[in-house]
Amino acid sequence: MICVIACTNRPNSYSLKIAEYYIKLLQAEAVECTLIDLNTLPESYLFSALYHNQGKDESFNGIKKTIADAEKFIFVVPEYNGSFPGVLKAFIDGLDYPASFKNKKAALLGISSGNMGGSLALSHLTDILNYLGMHVLASKPRITRVEQTFVDGEINDAFVKGLIAIQAKDLLSF
Amino acid sequence: MICVIACTNRPNSYSLKIAEYYIKLLQAEAVECTLIDLNTLPESYLFSALYHNQGKDESFNGIKKTIADAEKFIFVVPEYNGSFPGVLKAFIDGLDYPASFKNKKAALLGISSGNMGGSLALSHLTDILNYLGMHVLASKPRITRVEQTFVDGEINDAFVKGLIAIQAKDLLSF
Amino acid sequence: MICVIACTNRPNSYSLKIAEYYIKLLQAEAVECTLIDLNTLPESYLFSALYHNQGKDESFNGIKKTIADAEKFIFVVPEYNGSFPGVLKAFIDGLDYPASFKNKKAALLGISSGNMGGSLALSHLTDILNYLGMHVLASKPRITRVEQTFVDGEINDAFVKGLIAIQAKDLLSF
Amino acid sequence: MICVIACTNRPNSYSLKIAEYYIKLLQAEAVECTLIDLNTLPESYLFSALYHNQGKDESFNGIKKTIADAEKFIFVVPEYNGSFPGVLKAFIDGLDYPASFKNKKAALLGISSGNMGGSLALSHLTDILNYLGMHVLASKPRITRVEQTFVDGEINDAFVKGLIAIQAKDLLSF
Repeated sequence: MICVIACTNRPNSYSLKIAEYYIKLLQAEAVECTLIDLNTLPESYLFSALYHNQGKDESFNGIKKTIADAEKFIFVVPEYNGSFPGVLKAFIDGLDYPASFKNKKAALLGISSGNMGGSLALSHLTDILNYLGMHVLASKPRITRVEQTFVDGEINDAFVKGLIAIQAKDLLSF
Repeated sequence: MICVIACTNRPNSYSLKIAEYYIKLLQAEAVECTLIDLNTLPESYLFSALYHNQGKDESFNGIKKTIADAEKFIFVVPEYNGSFPGVLKAFIDGLDYPASFKNKKAALLGISSGNMGGSLALSHLTDILNYLGMHVLASKPRITRVEQTFVDGEINDAFVKGLIAIQAKDLLSF
Repeated sequence: MICVIACTNRPNSYSLKIAEYYIKLLQAEAVECTLIDLNTLPESYLFSALYHNQGKDESFNGIKKTIADAEKFIFVVPEYNGSFPGVLKAFIDGLDYPASFKNKKAALLGISSGNMGGSLALSHLTDILNYLGMHVLASKPRITRVEQTFVDGEINDAFVKGLIAIQAKDLLSF
Repeated sequence: MICVIACTNRPNSYSLKIAEYYIKLLQAEAVECTLIDLNTLPESYLFSALYHNQGKDESFNGIKKTIADAEKFIFVVPEYNGSFPGVLKAFIDGLDYPASFKNKKAALLGISSGNMGGSLALSHLTDILNYLGMHVLASKPRITRVEQTFVDGEINDAFVKGLIAIQAKDLLSF
């Protein structure tokens, strides 16, 4: 089972649209998938889930179970301030160790409005996932100027579709 | 004015204790200081301050003003999962650009329970602060096995006190 | 076939000794191994192999063939000036792309005299190997205070031997 | 005195051309400059300067003196294999500590043929220079698709000239 994570809690993010596209692509290959959209974290996640109500939030417990059940992960990672969104690391900080990621495998896809595509974001995230024992697929494609790849809310860019198709294939055989 | 940031929202953290020690040290040199403890962020910070109530939270607006008024910063950074706590980046993601950090100066101090002392945390944070236009003091000391430096809630370790005193002096002349 | 690389050209380095230990361990498991000691690069490697005699150095051509034939790699990486030795990256810069590393797998082992163990070195090297298409094993153990693990030129430290044995096993199943 | 370093030993590199442009710009502001072109390192630098003839190479001793005398540095850094050229780190490994870089200041400029502009290269180099005690200017501009900025061997791109002029000004007041 592959879990695709849209790594921001911004409502209606490009990351979510790309995560949904990724899932359609994988499902067309008969791969079982689940989506985690960080926008569905509890409002008070930073305090209740991490500290004073640790383990007691039903919706977050459901997300943790989804994570624990997945064998492979796809992180769709927007660039925020030269790295990934803080909510992604806060999310990871609230997960169980080692059940969540250890000895599992992940593919990272960077997206940005600018021309860096999140090189540093993907490097930082690789450090963290490796630290937690998760292997990261070498190929970490970056989609720059992400707005331009969408037409009417749909990805309309053969190059980007190609990037994703190749990475999906690589992850399946990783 | 120097702003010292305890970079976790964990209640009663070692980071907070070290931030408070740092402030006492600077105040003894007649340096004006303020403390930001990420534990005082609004409970729903991740959603309200960043998205649906952006700019409308009075307590966070006060923190933003403190940041805007400071010229130098000290980040006391605990190591969480091979990097810094997610709440720190979420905090940074909610600040104003460029008023917060551009053309200002920062010193980073890493702390950890283990023996890495947050090398990667400080590297990731340097990338982000540099991206936002803030100069980072070269010297980034790391306090490992932080529990052992405290006795009865007070820092009781001449080596650690020395590290902090030297960094404080370096930041003042940076 | 696993290729073990001692990632410095310092004569009689600890890296070389650990690479040799690693090979003995793998050979005891009937794994075929080769050693590359960067001390055996041509003296004028930086200029002749990379530029004016590119492809014409017989000894370096032999090394390139060894690399091309290997499927998995172990990099024994000493910490030099907050990263890995420059000679390692110069070595990589002279290798053929994509025959050398693409779609292959590597394990990284950091060693240092100090207490950092090369965290940043291993992070930088992961970035580079991933860029070249090589998957890196999540677990990247670090041997700190390396001098203390040797007695009479032999590794004499159960903890370090354990680290290496576990990583060897992990790499075989990666 | 500002020392500008062309961070590759590739003959006739774009890095060298940009370093020379940078020096002309600074000299027009009456700033004293020196150039270090890594192409002028001794052929056997990796072995003789670092190990068996350490300290005895006259030409490298001259370079070390130039470094020791400089107060600020500009590193013109091409992207090689997802980082900076290995020769740059080998060069740094051969310098004296702390006379070379400690408590000095540097500006980094990344260049690439592709569209990444060396984000990771500049991050890795910042880690290393910070480790050695050198402060790094926050702004680290990146010139992508460097070939396109040159016409007849001269920089012919207003945007790139602007980037360099701003960084030069920032370094002078850093």
